[in-house]
Amino acid sequence: MTLQFESVVKADIARLTPLIESRLLTPLSEGEAPKLKDSMVYSLSAGGKRIRPILCLLATESLGEPIELAVSSAVALEYIHTYSLIHDDLPAMDDDDLRRGKPTNHKVFGEGHAILAGDGLLTEAFCILAMDQGLDSDRRVEAIKVLSQAAGWRGMVGGQSLDLEGEVLVEAGKPYDYEHLKLIHRLKTGALLQASLEMGAVVGGATSNIRGILKEAGSALGLAFQIKDDILDATSTSETMGKRVGKDEVKGKITFPKLLGLDGSKNALIKATEQAIMLLGQLPNPNSLVAWARYLAERTK
Amino acid sequence: MTLQFESVVKADIARLTPLIESRLLTPLSEGEAPKLKDSMVYSLSAGGKRIRPILCLLATESLGEPIELAVSSAVALEYIHTYSLIHDDLPAMDDDDLRRGKPTNHKVFGEGHAILAGDGLLTEAFCILAMDQGLDSDRRVEAIKVLSQAAGWRGMVGGQSLDLEGEVLVEAGKPYDYEHLKLIHRLKTGALLQASLEMGAVVGGATSNIRGILKEAGSALGLAFQIKDDILDATSTSETMGKRVGKDEVKGKITFPKLLGLDGSKNALIKATEQAIMLLGQLPNPNSLVAWARYLAERTK
Repeated sequence: MTLQFESVVKADIARLTPLIESRLLTPLSEGEAPKLKDSMVYSLSAGGKRIRPILCLLATESLGEPIELAVSSAVALEYIHTYSLIHDDLPAMDDDDLRRGKPTNHKVFGEGHAILAGDGLLTEAFCILAMDQGLDSDRRVEAIKVLSQAAGWRGMVGGQSLDLEGEVLVEAGKPYDYEHLKLIHRLKTGALLQASLEMGAVVGGATSNIRGILKEAGSALGLAFQIKDDILDATSTSETMGKRVGKDEVKGKITFPKLLGLDGSKNALIKATEQAIMLLGQLPNPNSLVAWARYLAERTK
Repeated sequence: MTLQFESVVKADIARLTPLIESRLLTPLSEGEAPKLKDSMVYSLSAGGKRIRPILCLLATESLGEPIELAVSSAVALEYIHTYSLIHDDLPAMDDDDLRRGKPTNHKVFGEGHAILAGDGLLTEAFCILAMDQGLDSDRRVEAIKVLSQAAGWRGMVGGQSLDLEGEVLVEAGKPYDYEHLKLIHRLKTGALLQASLEMGAVVGGATSNIRGILKEAGSALGLAFQIKDDILDATSTSETMGKRVGKDEVKGKITFPKLLGLDGSKNALIKATEQAIMLLGQLPNPNSLVAWARYLAERTK
């Protein structure tokens, strides 16, 4: 079983990553602000795992629809993810110097341009969706709704705010509980992973039932993803991860291992992953997404 | 003539500002991140002149169409404008403590939350447009295209980048010329003012000819607006403006008065305004927009 999911994921990466990479910089081909463009290209090209775009393409494929329908959604998701990393790394936020083994955007281009690069990528994500000639206007609008709700103050940005606030609570000696931790992560990380699957459903023309299943599976996957991230942060080395680890501990941040213990966290990870897999099993063509659910739970970085 | 345009503008403000204000906070009525919401509401409620939303509503009205069609565009424009002010005021950008006579967002909520408030408003602007039940999907998509191109790296964010870069050039003793100054302002300020008129055209169902006229008029208005801003910065007091003035001089920034002189700037202002008025005269119902073009050139703050 282990070997099987690994070979499926490996084949998906080999098949889908070149497609995503080949489309990622196309929207930035013109323009009159060279340094801004350089700073956006720098972070887009910093070699992420492209998990959100891959999940989006696979969601469309899981319906039996051509992945070409989902390419602009996949690219838009990576623009949003990349902007969020640039802004999260800023001194006023997580203050990180290293990302994916390279200096963070503001270390290279300065804080002003890092803020602008994030703003530019965020805005362009919606431009990419609106410009997609391969989708009718109804699907474009629906994809924009899903992405803007997941990425904005109701979702990712809201989660980042709660996370900043959480640090204040912890510093004041008021640590919060498991439900609050899950809320932060549901918004901060879960919302965009969930949107990846839901956008794949929307552009693929899913029925509302199938869309609901992908959305719920995305929610479970998002929780699993964050639990795994916390476990890795507590147990890995910077060398393996390509970014600073153990920083949650240093900051006194509340994490899943801290609230549930390492074994409790691993159990919660298994539970969320199994729930995602159970839901995904109801799709017409679930094999790849199921393999990815297992892979994301067992990844080592 | 003077009295006439002033009374038209006064009536438009009395008629349209309450409508805009009454819709401005509606999109923020739910959500789970209270401090983020407070910081977004703070800047939205800081009492701007609402020029972009008013121009957008008037553009739809100039076609003989009901302004209700343009309300979500108007609100989205104000979200974009407000986010841009929050990010521009950050220490890494213009480093301003005062905006519209009140402490800037990061002075009240901290830099981290000011960045997030900007990100949240920017993202929500596209959500507002995508959710507008009063427009068919084609018009929603077209409005999102116009706004994302004007606000993003091809437009406003690009202009802000060139402006930051310009400061570096000037510090290095390489002042730039009139054409480069116009480019910066066409992107930084002009693009969003132009989009205000173009979005009003799009949601009002304008022919491509009429849309082109409003777009071109918006471009001229945007240039006039920025020349006037520079003239005011050079000649007004902080008390009148509600924000720091003379800062262009302090920063050694290139401005229209510095390149063209005060008289030359006033002539360029008149020329751009007259061009806008000439174009607007071709619309079915141009009176309000023409009055606003005169008002924007003669405003004292």
